[in-house]
Amino acid sequence: MGRWEPNARGRLEQAALELYVERGYEQTPVADIAQRAGLTERTFFRHFADKREVLFGGSGRLEELCVGAVAAAPATATPLEAVTAALDTAAGVFEERGDLVRQRQGVIDANTELRERELIKLASLSAALADALRERGVGELTALLTAESAVGVLKVAFGRWMDEGQGRPLRPLLAECFDVLRTLSARGAVGAG
Amino acid sequence: MGRWEPNARGRLEQAALELYVERGYEQTPVADIAQRAGLTERTFFRHFADKREVLFGGSGRLEELCVGAVAAAPATATPLEAVTAALDTAAGVFEERGDLVRQRQGVIDANTELRERELIKLASLSAALADALRERGVGELTALLTAESAVGVLKVAFGRWMDEGQGRPLRPLLAECFDVLRTLSARGAVGAG
Repeated sequence: MGRWEPNARGRLEQAALELYVERGYEQTPVADIAQRAGLTERTFFRHFADKREVLFGGSGRLEELCVGAVAAAPATATPLEAVTAALDTAAGVFEERGDLVRQRQGVIDANTELRERELIKLASLSAALADALRERGVGELTALLTAESAVGVLKVAFGRWMDEGQGRPLRPLLAECFDVLRTLSARGAVGAG
Repeated sequence: MGRWEPNARGRLEQAALELYVERGYEQTPVADIAQRAGLTERTFFRHFADKREVLFGGSGRLEELCVGAVAAAPATATPLEAVTAALDTAAGVFEERGDLVRQRQGVIDANTELRERELIKLASLSAALADALRERGVGELTALLTAESAVGVLKVAFGRWMDEGQGRPLRPLLAECFDVLRTLSARGAVGAG
């Protein structure tokens, strides 16, 4: 935050991810992260509450992006179309940073504490999407259920993207998941998807 | 588990909930829970990994119940119909124990750690529902998305049930949420729900 620490936040995020990948999350104290970033522990704690949080610095930005995209969707868009646009925007960011996203997910998947924190962030994203839909005049239950569905789609599509390695990009996977979601209510949907 | 400790598990669960309500979760050591239940700390740790887990003893049973209901759904049921039946079964159990469920939720909502654990349990329920759907021959994406949708519906309906106090029972709330979910994909769904 001081002018003598340019991009301290980004440097700490990068140093933490490097060390978590090299040595494991549990084996990396905050002191080592600060040192790798060329900063002090005090600076670390000015930016992040703990060594979990440094992995989730991007989730606030992701949330803002999604909320902005819901607000920017055309007035004629249905709630589901508005969140589809939001996740498409988010997917673009994930795709740009593919290798980093993959490394980070590997660290998270290996640790229960981190998986818990990830679920909290997804719950927060769902709440933010529901708020953004309410702002559009969407009714309460529809707002909540659309937001939950969107986060469900994101979890499934993202998981598949990670599993497929360097296969398909995330966006078509998201689109496929939204297609399947739309068919769920069809009476004949006995599960070819 | 020994015969000198009849229903130790249930007694510990009850004692923990009483103390968490009376004094707060953070202010209640395991020793006090064991004492209130007339048991030893050692017995506590034979049944529960920690003082968070004692609040979630029912979630394994809930999961089994839901998985059983998905398996028992008629062969002609769509995936969404199968999970609807599962949540209806689960809702019956919640309704029977309404006051306890409400007390327990109050404790969970007041504590970040507990909310995190709850999200882990819901993620586990989603995975179990997806497995149960796969067992029925449901395709991978449909299984995952149906399970995520079901857990989304459960979260929203349960939250509303808690908020409404002694208002409507849970089952009609669940049914209403599934109805809204089914209308999300309709082109005209601009959000009256």
